[in-house]
Amino acid sequence: MKFTVQQIADLLKGTVHGPGEIEINQLAKIDDPQAGTGSICFLANPKYENYLYSTRASAVIIQEDFQPRQAVHPALILVSDPYSAFTQLLEEYNRLVNQYQHAHKIGIESPVCMGQNVQLGREVYVGAFAYIGNDCQLGDGVKIYPHCYIGDKVKIGAGTIVFPGVKIYENTQIGQYCTLHAGAVIGSEGFGFAPQADGSYKNIPQLGNVILQDHVSIGANTTIDRATIGSTIIEHGVKLDNLIQIGHNVVIGEHTVMAAQTGVAGSSKIGKRCVIAGQVGIANSLQIADQVVIGAKAGINRNLKQEKTTVIGAPAMDYKTFMKASVIFRKLPELQRRVELLEEKTLNLPPQ
Amino acid sequence: MKFTVQQIADLLKGTVHGPGEIEINQLAKIDDPQAGTGSICFLANPKYENYLYSTRASAVIIQEDFQPRQAVHPALILVSDPYSAFTQLLEEYNRLVNQYQHAHKIGIESPVCMGQNVQLGREVYVGAFAYIGNDCQLGDGVKIYPHCYIGDKVKIGAGTIVFPGVKIYENTQIGQYCTLHAGAVIGSEGFGFAPQADGSYKNIPQLGNVILQDHVSIGANTTIDRATIGSTIIEHGVKLDNLIQIGHNVVIGEHTVMAAQTGVAGSSKIGKRCVIAGQVGIANSLQIADQVVIGAKAGINRNLKQEKTTVIGAPAMDYKTFMKASVIFRKLPELQRRVELLEEKTLNLPPQ
Amino acid sequence: MKFTVQQIADLLKGTVHGPGEIEINQLAKIDDPQAGTGSICFLANPKYENYLYSTRASAVIIQEDFQPRQAVHPALILVSDPYSAFTQLLEEYNRLVNQYQHAHKIGIESPVCMGQNVQLGREVYVGAFAYIGNDCQLGDGVKIYPHCYIGDKVKIGAGTIVFPGVKIYENTQIGQYCTLHAGAVIGSEGFGFAPQADGSYKNIPQLGNVILQDHVSIGANTTIDRATIGSTIIEHGVKLDNLIQIGHNVVIGEHTVMAAQTGVAGSSKIGKRCVIAGQVGIANSLQIADQVVIGAKAGINRNLKQEKTTVIGAPAMDYKTFMKASVIFRKLPELQRRVELLEEKTLNLPPQ
Repeated sequence: MKFTVQQIADLLKGTVHGPGEIEINQLAKIDDPQAGTGSICFLANPKYENYLYSTRASAVIIQEDFQPRQAVHPALILVSDPYSAFTQLLEEYNRLVNQYQHAHKIGIESPVCMGQNVQLGREVYVGAFAYIGNDCQLGDGVKIYPHCYIGDKVKIGAGTIVFPGVKIYENTQIGQYCTLHAGAVIGSEGFGFAPQADGSYKNIPQLGNVILQDHVSIGANTTIDRATIGSTIIEHGVKLDNLIQIGHNVVIGEHTVMAAQTGVAGSSKIGKRCVIAGQVGIANSLQIADQVVIGAKAGINRNLKQEKTTVIGAPAMDYKTFMKASVIFRKLPELQRRVELLEEKTLNLPPQ
Repeated sequence: MKFTVQQIADLLKGTVHGPGEIEINQLAKIDDPQAGTGSICFLANPKYENYLYSTRASAVIIQEDFQPRQAVHPALILVSDPYSAFTQLLEEYNRLVNQYQHAHKIGIESPVCMGQNVQLGREVYVGAFAYIGNDCQLGDGVKIYPHCYIGDKVKIGAGTIVFPGVKIYENTQIGQYCTLHAGAVIGSEGFGFAPQADGSYKNIPQLGNVILQDHVSIGANTTIDRATIGSTIIEHGVKLDNLIQIGHNVVIGEHTVMAAQTGVAGSSKIGKRCVIAGQVGIANSLQIADQVVIGAKAGINRNLKQEKTTVIGAPAMDYKTFMKASVIFRKLPELQRRVELLEEKTLNLPPQ
Repeated sequence: MKFTVQQIADLLKGTVHGPGEIEINQLAKIDDPQAGTGSICFLANPKYENYLYSTRASAVIIQEDFQPRQAVHPALILVSDPYSAFTQLLEEYNRLVNQYQHAHKIGIESPVCMGQNVQLGREVYVGAFAYIGNDCQLGDGVKIYPHCYIGDKVKIGAGTIVFPGVKIYENTQIGQYCTLHAGAVIGSEGFGFAPQADGSYKNIPQLGNVILQDHVSIGANTTIDRATIGSTIIEHGVKLDNLIQIGHNVVIGEHTVMAAQTGVAGSSKIGKRCVIAGQVGIANSLQIADQVVIGAKAGINRNLKQEKTTVIGAPAMDYKTFMKASVIFRKLPELQRRVELLEEKTLNLPPQ
């Protein structure tokens, strides 16, 4: 996929200064020393201006009022907002790449293992070594990459991409336009064990399933357990990063995002549009209100019923409280010394 | 699998009020708005009584002395203890489901890659795209799901289920009636590197193996490293949740349970019947006594030699100590202010 | 692989006391009750001397000046430094095992799915059910174990071993003599989402790739995201343990080691020869200097610009500061009580 500088300028509704016929085949960052012939980058932050004079990229997207302080080698594309122009270019590029990479992947590679009574939509891709159980439904344009395991009675909505090696246990329901990254496990047995009198544990049957609604993204090697009874539910637009653990019967509200290595224990309900950072732990059977923000490494051991609060710490508390207390934590030896000095000084005062 | 309300009542030694001939095909929670025709649920907690009058489930298991305050639509099964009756039903259902799902999975699907000199017990299942190395032994009723990799000389005891995509390195020994969930890795190389004079690291050979004893459960995408020399040992009845890391030469005592995302570094020995919560970190070469309880996110950096203690925090301390200290942590700015006030107030006192 | 005690003594330039013709087929620890006939172990730490008199191992490597206090049953190999002699033996053993295990794995098993225009070096191994995309290059001696997925245009340098079930997305570049353990995911989509006015998120295209330089080791089920633009770079000699998360556009400097379950968020740059313990979290867009040591469970939320510092805590601070403050943290209830007593005692002092 190659385009000329002029073609890109036309797409971005910008003006070319310099040779418009140069071919571009790569997007790059202006401070990337690897950026060379064929690369295009952008300059939005004045802090990076010096790179403009040293880059070997072929073209730079730049603010239309920009006045260079010295000679500029790459062709320039002048636009009103270089950052959004570059984002637009990224999206266009991505659209083309997706068309190229995924859209052209159509058909059933060989060998695959296809169960009985599987319904396949139009333009479905099933990669080699994929295993599809009985009574599954794959909607139009679904892409199943190699080494995926799809258990019996799984439904996957139109436009969903399942990357290599994803394992989906039976009865899972996945909506439209979801993305499941490599190695994710959906529908494994919830961690439920009943203690016995002899100190051993007995397995509690896990009979439910997992439901992913539409536009959900699941990161690489993330695990989502199925419900004991009923469903573990990941609502519309939820984005989960890599290596996240979601316990049985959890519900995650729509458009909530969660960064890597966070864990949610069984039966907790997370609100809508929450922003949850990395390595957070949320204990079982809790309620988190809508639009709550949880800082990295927080440990949540109680309900967070108020919307739009920001918490951090383990156990978690209000963000500002934590930050102020943390500053004093470092000085605890000094604070203790001050108390000692006071005790010495008041030694001879009579008790009240 | 369908049963009538009457058949279920007979199983639970209960009495039917209402139509006993209705067919049941699903277990549900009484507060689940999805529960409809064919569902059975239970009412044990009076808090949920209102759902009894609104549920569209076909049957509810209920305490035999219960007096409804208004009209009830579902059939009722009256029992002395609704919660244990439902648990019994769950187990029975699960037994049937297991019979259906796993027991009927018998035989070798195609294609698989089977090594030389592999011994297969009776009623073994090997799913498509499984890879079994040379000199392996699979006991009676072992189920190997698709995409599993079993290295050379691996032994797996009777009744063990290995879910899709589990990777087991060579020489691993697995006992009877274990469950290994999708994506688990057993026997990967321990993280051992000897620092060199030039600042680089040299690989320390990892020659041991992993032993899982009987009735062990391993969660999805959990990793267990093999020993440098000797064996990493997971004893009888241990239950490990998802995304757990067990380092080389670790020993986990029987009937210990460990929640998701916890990590145990090399050569640590965990006692029997411990309860270890999620996201805990245990440093290397430590000893943890029997029946120790470790709270979520704790960091263990010293031996815990006393049985039955409960610790939390990082570094970990006694549970009550941590909780009391945490309350004051939040108020540190106030405590500091109080010390300042005391300093001002005592400014003119003579030094002692 | 069997050797006599005399052959091992010759290798280690040691002297045999006792029967040199006994055959050895296993390395063991001196305190391992399982060590029996055919085992060799070493005694370096005097603390373990008693095991010398009780072990049933066939041979023990021991310091040449050692004077036994009672009868010794195993053959002894006397050397100047038993620990390094044993390490040497380990390495030799490992070399032979590697030769046996990996070097003899040559050729393409069946079935595999091999793309178009794939260049294979000499003595390459590709295990059954491996999937290799188009335009890939595998150098001499590369071993691809079963169930690996290698996307289009991936380059893998000579001598690299890719264990079962590793997933490598397209355009990834891997150097020479790397080791990728089972279930690792390289090149998954970075976690980048642009918030929209309606509270939903829009996917930011992730167009870059991942570069692993030479002698890099990647642990089981570890995930490394590809760059948004440019490359996520893991430099020479870096060792990553299991279940680690590396975000998009991260750079990890050469010979840095990182223990299990640590996470590095997008665009952070870690220096060379750093030592980063387990369950550490590093926020996005940070700079960590060379040779920084980060303790277990630390949370890094600011740049660490000074080389060779040691930090711990969340938020992280100097190691000694943290340890001293932690001691007082436990005594906060007592400290608060002392402040209360001071307040009572000074109640009647006039304000200053």
